[in-house]
Amino acid sequence: MATRIGQRTVRFDRPPRISAAAAVVGKREGEGPLGALFDEVHADNLVNEASWEKAESRLQALALEAALRKGNCPSQAVDAVFAGDLLNQCIGSTFGLREFGIPLIGLYGACSTMALSLGCAALFVESGAARRAAAVTSSHFCAAERQYRFPIAYGGQRTPTAQWTVTGAGAVLLAAGERGAAVTAFTVGQISDLGVSDANNMGAAMAPAAADTVLRYFADTKTDPADYDGIFTGDLGQVGSELFCGLLAREGVSLAGKHADCGLLIYDRARQDVHAGGSGCGCSASVLCAALLPRLQRGEYRRILFCATGALLSPTSVQQGETIPSIAHLLCLTSGD
Amino acid sequence: MATRIGQRTVRFDRPPRISAAAAVVGKREGEGPLGALFDEVHADNLVNEASWEKAESRLQALALEAALRKGNCPSQAVDAVFAGDLLNQCIGSTFGLREFGIPLIGLYGACSTMALSLGCAALFVESGAARRAAAVTSSHFCAAERQYRFPIAYGGQRTPTAQWTVTGAGAVLLAAGERGAAVTAFTVGQISDLGVSDANNMGAAMAPAAADTVLRYFADTKTDPADYDGIFTGDLGQVGSELFCGLLAREGVSLAGKHADCGLLIYDRARQDVHAGGSGCGCSASVLCAALLPRLQRGEYRRILFCATGALLSPTSVQQGETIPSIAHLLCLTSGD
Repeated sequence: MATRIGQRTVRFDRPPRISAAAAVVGKREGEGPLGALFDEVHADNLVNEASWEKAESRLQALALEAALRKGNCPSQAVDAVFAGDLLNQCIGSTFGLREFGIPLIGLYGACSTMALSLGCAALFVESGAARRAAAVTSSHFCAAERQYRFPIAYGGQRTPTAQWTVTGAGAVLLAAGERGAAVTAFTVGQISDLGVSDANNMGAAMAPAAADTVLRYFADTKTDPADYDGIFTGDLGQVGSELFCGLLAREGVSLAGKHADCGLLIYDRARQDVHAGGSGCGCSASVLCAALLPRLQRGEYRRILFCATGALLSPTSVQQGETIPSIAHLLCLTSGD
Repeated sequence: MATRIGQRTVRFDRPPRISAAAAVVGKREGEGPLGALFDEVHADNLVNEASWEKAESRLQALALEAALRKGNCPSQAVDAVFAGDLLNQCIGSTFGLREFGIPLIGLYGACSTMALSLGCAALFVESGAARRAAAVTSSHFCAAERQYRFPIAYGGQRTPTAQWTVTGAGAVLLAAGERGAAVTAFTVGQISDLGVSDANNMGAAMAPAAADTVLRYFADTKTDPADYDGIFTGDLGQVGSELFCGLLAREGVSLAGKHADCGLLIYDRARQDVHAGGSGCGCSASVLCAALLPRLQRGEYRRILFCATGALLSPTSVQQGETIPSIAHLLCLTSGD
């Protein structure tokens, strides 16, 4: 049974377990601090495909294949896959998952999609609607630049607040069961829009959404940061992370020693030229799958929060002078033992 | 409890009830055979907004407002809204729903989104994750033409197999409860791709997906067309409907007298120049909300199938020579009494 607690949080009384996870990334991500943790690193960002978009689809397929292999699970045993990405009409997912023969629930939450898809997958498993489910998301730097900003060959200058779209994909397999890391709660995000209109500063646009969701989760569950081994946002980057921690401090909540952002974990900003940090659906997905879930599975973390953030803009909305609505979805994950 | 039956169908043992629904459409839809049934018809396709995209967002907001009003339900009482549309990054939904303060689950299923969002909303309500939920989708002819094909002012010729994107939005409110039409089963779609690559013949691309989902549902539930008062697809149009019925006939399933397509119901093709019929997320959504659900609520239908179909292409995938992956999600709806 899913039980609503407080205003916006769903508690899973029979928490679905994470049976396997995998992350597949590009060259720059492989050169970052988490490089050794990824399941596959592709030096060729085209991954042997003919376009950046097809390469992104391929990353998504490779991540799901790796998770199925690690979970020793045939694709026919997966009742539903929850997937999304940043490409127009989510073609990273639809073409990436076309050959698997798994019922598909397509989602759109911009860079928050990993938390959204994993939360929905958890509800399907917990309610009995699916015995096994998968959550998969991806992004690709070159495909995103071409679509949102400029083609790579143009060599456009980036502002210091800009974030670098991660080339990568993450896939998580969930099952009803007894063992393994567990998804114990899901707080569905609500749109925040405080009027930021700079599409090169999405961290600032998303910070209020992350603060809103995390504060709501703490209130709903009557817990505080001391109850968690880590509170991971993704992907606020440097600018957004400072704003996020500041917004929480203003409400009397200190995250000192607890907070890290997936967009800051994936690159070494001193060594890699990524400006304010990483972003993209593939950022929090690959950090979750490569760095966070293994530590939960090994019991090094007992309980963490994973709060993925998304900027719900489009190039068209920016050109029409709109501000940037943002959202953050949150999951509580435990070591399950 | 949700119970899986057969391979791909979820049965809702405590079916969520539809407490209200509303449809808001544009001028051409208002002039069609269902014109008198819509809650609002806007003669101005800009709906007093400055762009087609903002107009689409406005339609989505108006449809949800109308459904909340008809259901006598404040927006704060809705625990989650499930929404999607065809615009890049789903800005029809994110900007349309920005002011409501309702937790948002964004979905992408192209023109299948109404069945996808209503099915997911039903699971959230049935499992206890939400007390009340809403499902909302939209499309806009001019915004879709500019994004997928040519700007309206270009005056591009359309092929006879092309469909006309509906300007409209539909919203459904769901609640746990005793009375009203019910969502009793949900079959999650699986991608079909038989190699159709003509983006002006999406009916042909989607027909196999619809046939696959409907046949799977009949097998899973051990029912046949005689058990239903109507089997509604959306939006296959004229070309896709003929192929769909042919594919089912080949499997020994006759839909004679039972099948209708939302894309054919919404316009009078003899009088309105829409080529193969209507399409767009707003097509099956507005037909469901204005024509099908009221007949269920009045008991004129006892049990129907609503199978919305989506073509999961993008202009980029077409330009890169890809075929068109398609999907169809199905709901069983009953009068509930």
